[in-house]
Amino acid sequence: MVLRKITSFVLPVHLTAEKPSLQDNSADLDRLRRALRAILPDSRPLEIPFARVVSLCRRFRQAGFAGVALVNDLPERWVLADFLPELPAMLPAMALDLGTTHLEATLVDLLTGRVLSSAGRENSQIEYGADILSRIHQATQERRKMREVDFSFIDPGLALLQQNIVSCINALTAELVAGSGVDAGDIRALSLSGNTTMVHLLLGLDPFHICREPYIPMVNSIEPMESRELGLALHEAAPIWIMPSVGSYFGGDLIAGILASGMAGSAQTRMLIDVGTNAEVVLGNRDWLIACAGAAGPALEGGVARMGMRAAPGAIEYVSLDPVTYVLEVKTIDDAPARGICGSGLIDLVAALYLARIIDVRGKFRDPERESDPGRAAFMRERLVVRDGQRAFVVVAPSAAGAGDEVLLEQIDIDAMIRSKAAMYAVLATLMGQVDLDFGDLAEICVAGAFGSHLNPRQAITLGMLPDLDLSVYRAIGNSSLQGAQQVLLSRSSRQECLDIVSKITYVELNVNQEFMIRFSGARFIPHTDPSIFPSVPLFAEQKEDL
Amino acid sequence: MVLRKITSFVLPVHLTAEKPSLQDNSADLDRLRRALRAILPDSRPLEIPFARVVSLCRRFRQAGFAGVALVNDLPERWVLADFLPELPAMLPAMALDLGTTHLEATLVDLLTGRVLSSAGRENSQIEYGADILSRIHQATQERRKMREVDFSFIDPGLALLQQNIVSCINALTAELVAGSGVDAGDIRALSLSGNTTMVHLLLGLDPFHICREPYIPMVNSIEPMESRELGLALHEAAPIWIMPSVGSYFGGDLIAGILASGMAGSAQTRMLIDVGTNAEVVLGNRDWLIACAGAAGPALEGGVARMGMRAAPGAIEYVSLDPVTYVLEVKTIDDAPARGICGSGLIDLVAALYLARIIDVRGKFRDPERESDPGRAAFMRERLVVRDGQRAFVVVAPSAAGAGDEVLLEQIDIDAMIRSKAAMYAVLATLMGQVDLDFGDLAEICVAGAFGSHLNPRQAITLGMLPDLDLSVYRAIGNSSLQGAQQVLLSRSSRQECLDIVSKITYVELNVNQEFMIRFSGARFIPHTDPSIFPSVPLFAEQKEDL
Repeated sequence: MVLRKITSFVLPVHLTAEKPSLQDNSADLDRLRRALRAILPDSRPLEIPFARVVSLCRRFRQAGFAGVALVNDLPERWVLADFLPELPAMLPAMALDLGTTHLEATLVDLLTGRVLSSAGRENSQIEYGADILSRIHQATQERRKMREVDFSFIDPGLALLQQNIVSCINALTAELVAGSGVDAGDIRALSLSGNTTMVHLLLGLDPFHICREPYIPMVNSIEPMESRELGLALHEAAPIWIMPSVGSYFGGDLIAGILASGMAGSAQTRMLIDVGTNAEVVLGNRDWLIACAGAAGPALEGGVARMGMRAAPGAIEYVSLDPVTYVLEVKTIDDAPARGICGSGLIDLVAALYLARIIDVRGKFRDPERESDPGRAAFMRERLVVRDGQRAFVVVAPSAAGAGDEVLLEQIDIDAMIRSKAAMYAVLATLMGQVDLDFGDLAEICVAGAFGSHLNPRQAITLGMLPDLDLSVYRAIGNSSLQGAQQVLLSRSSRQECLDIVSKITYVELNVNQEFMIRFSGARFIPHTDPSIFPSVPLFAEQKEDL
Repeated sequence: MVLRKITSFVLPVHLTAEKPSLQDNSADLDRLRRALRAILPDSRPLEIPFARVVSLCRRFRQAGFAGVALVNDLPERWVLADFLPELPAMLPAMALDLGTTHLEATLVDLLTGRVLSSAGRENSQIEYGADILSRIHQATQERRKMREVDFSFIDPGLALLQQNIVSCINALTAELVAGSGVDAGDIRALSLSGNTTMVHLLLGLDPFHICREPYIPMVNSIEPMESRELGLALHEAAPIWIMPSVGSYFGGDLIAGILASGMAGSAQTRMLIDVGTNAEVVLGNRDWLIACAGAAGPALEGGVARMGMRAAPGAIEYVSLDPVTYVLEVKTIDDAPARGICGSGLIDLVAALYLARIIDVRGKFRDPERESDPGRAAFMRERLVVRDGQRAFVVVAPSAAGAGDEVLLEQIDIDAMIRSKAAMYAVLATLMGQVDLDFGDLAEICVAGAFGSHLNPRQAITLGMLPDLDLSVYRAIGNSSLQGAQQVLLSRSSRQECLDIVSKITYVELNVNQEFMIRFSGARFIPHTDPSIFPSVPLFAEQKEDL
């Protein structure tokens, strides 16, 4: 991250006020407000929440009417949050990536920008449903029975999910501060990026219309509220920055990603790809932004393949197969015993099987009996087994596997993989078509998330999932949702940029897009029905002869 | 009140938003905010409290995305409070005069300015102490035992007093709406004027430093909070306007009075006199304001005389004594059986006794045995009795009195009365001296409150309590504290004027003022040691001969 002046979400303001006397008998609060107002850098209104008045006046008085005011820097106003006798050594704040399956957080010092610690945790709402739709279902059980909903009705299911995620965040906070010398109550701000539904569930907002045409959330942009309003175990006046979203299926996590990628401030056109449950793609530069989301993700994030799993210890993340010697090498995350295969491992594996001519251009296992190359035929006989009447590939034999089981790649896994990669390519190509640009016009393609970190773009190109560009165009940017959240804690212009991104972005609905459907069909071959657009990918005659 | 355009504390805004569609899938809240922002008359920030979001979105949706937004018009921002399908027939709001002994309120329609009902009630905190000091004592019992007070510590005594006054206001509200067709929950705003201590007790603010030199309140000016933050039985988002105060002993009730008197907007110089527990006096015009408070009140409000009482049914409010026939006439409020004597009755009585030469220039009962006029001597023998070795005057004989008791005026009552009237005159004269003006420069003297309504200025002049001016200079303005509160409900410029008054006013501390002490001594005669400044008051030789 480029070093720049910190304009943090909570501004510490040194002030010294006149002491009370018979000549100046201003009230404590008025005295504090007057001294602060004289120093604040701009004329935005200064608000002093009623709930803070007694504590503020006492602290101000006890500090001898001089010290450091902590002022929350909200888009349209200043909010006086606290008063301290002197500037503390650190001003801790928390950035949180509120994922559907996983939470990631960092503790940041607002004075220096330094990351003090980081922690992660499974989203405990998983017990109420692995995906967003089942959680919305859970949170609207009672509400769905009503014709008209009371204006202030809160579904018990929603209350339960809200309580659950608040507890989960509080547990994560405890983990984050453990050993850091910071008390959770000293955390002065939180910024949070999550998809639209997770934000609704955390804030206790009714998610009923999110999954019903025309897919309207209650809230996309919401003003920062105070920590105590959500029951979070932070300082009670800590402001909560919720990354704004663009729609039901385009959440604040992606806005954070756009922010972190820097694309919205760049003269050159860039692309951002974030693969989660959906594949979300953004294209643009400082002048325009266009985005879409498509159901390209599941197979790539381990949600479909029977042996699929998230990128976690024991997941096969890297596979190589020598197309001459047929030596198969497999690497798991943390070198733990193999338990399954994650998205990047799957891409590696399927690409390797294609290059070794074990599968054909449709992704189907070729028939070992019709194989003319003796080495390949031997390898195929060794590795290909029949399960449930279908061919499958033994990635790891039973004896070596962590769970005692073998790791198998079945035909249905490859089929799902092919659909996913076709959807992904179709999404990218359709988006480029919308603005009449070619892939060659892109200065950079940022690939976010664990998927991006583990992905080998070469193999993804081989499969025809990503465009056939020079590998230097691709950049893995990590957890951009968390990075974006961190950025807004430290920079006012980043906070403003979030709002600008939301107002600037155009969302393209692909479910109703004819061009997308045509491109999707064309992309269901390896690398493509039109191989000329993937010049770097070799084509072999034997993979076509069986078609 | 002059009719003018209403710019009420809660602004109803008619709006019609685009309905959601696949083409415009803005979130409900964003849609509402956008439509409202486009209509609001100025660029103050628009705040939507987090606690209101669910209810607002549901109401907006249920109304078909069109209707009336109710927006609280706060000095530095708009706050969206509610959304209704259509403008109701009335928009009720409440104005409250929060007195130490008595509460008065009116229900006002914000759409028309019409007063819908009014009600009054004793301040139920009286059970914890009749005066402000004993209530501060009660509210700081635990806190006084501590060397350092926890920043958020709330004294149980304070909590009790707060709860007590909130219940009292809620009971008054119930009375106010009874039979009006309005539900307490429909009351959309409250404006409230009270002295600084009463405001602290209602808001749960620590009053500890109010009565300790240099007499610093926690708060003089406070931003409007929401009804729900105080537990008031109004609409939960109703904004509460608290009349700002100037200091511990110069409260919002007087600021409301200044507002209602119109003096702060006038080119001519006016004086405002408000007699409660203290006599509070303001002098000024649109360019300057000067004020002071002195302990002139008690005897005038019935707090000292043994038979003294507030102006309430059964209180003697009017007395006449024919100086020739010695016929004594007494009138009670509501013509109820006499129970005591209120401030104005006391002034009438003492003035009458002076004019009838029953008391001398020091206010002492003259000796009937040394009286030469036979009629007066007979009257004195009939009416003057000796109690506890002191002369006393029988105002009402036992048989006719409501409580079965007689109504007596004792020497100590007259002595207290003389001290009070001397203090009052000294306050007025000292204040005039501060700005180097004479009483003759005043265009008007407004006398506020029940005291002002019942007072006969002629008799007050006779006693030397008020300056000897043409009676047309005096104007009784009634409950100006309540009127001022009512005014801010309906007018933005009045709300602004309150803040301007506070920043403009100069407070003169009389307790440390030498001039005041000299003037006080000079005023302890009837009408004055220098009778030439009261040319209209007759002087009789026999009243001096006994001195």
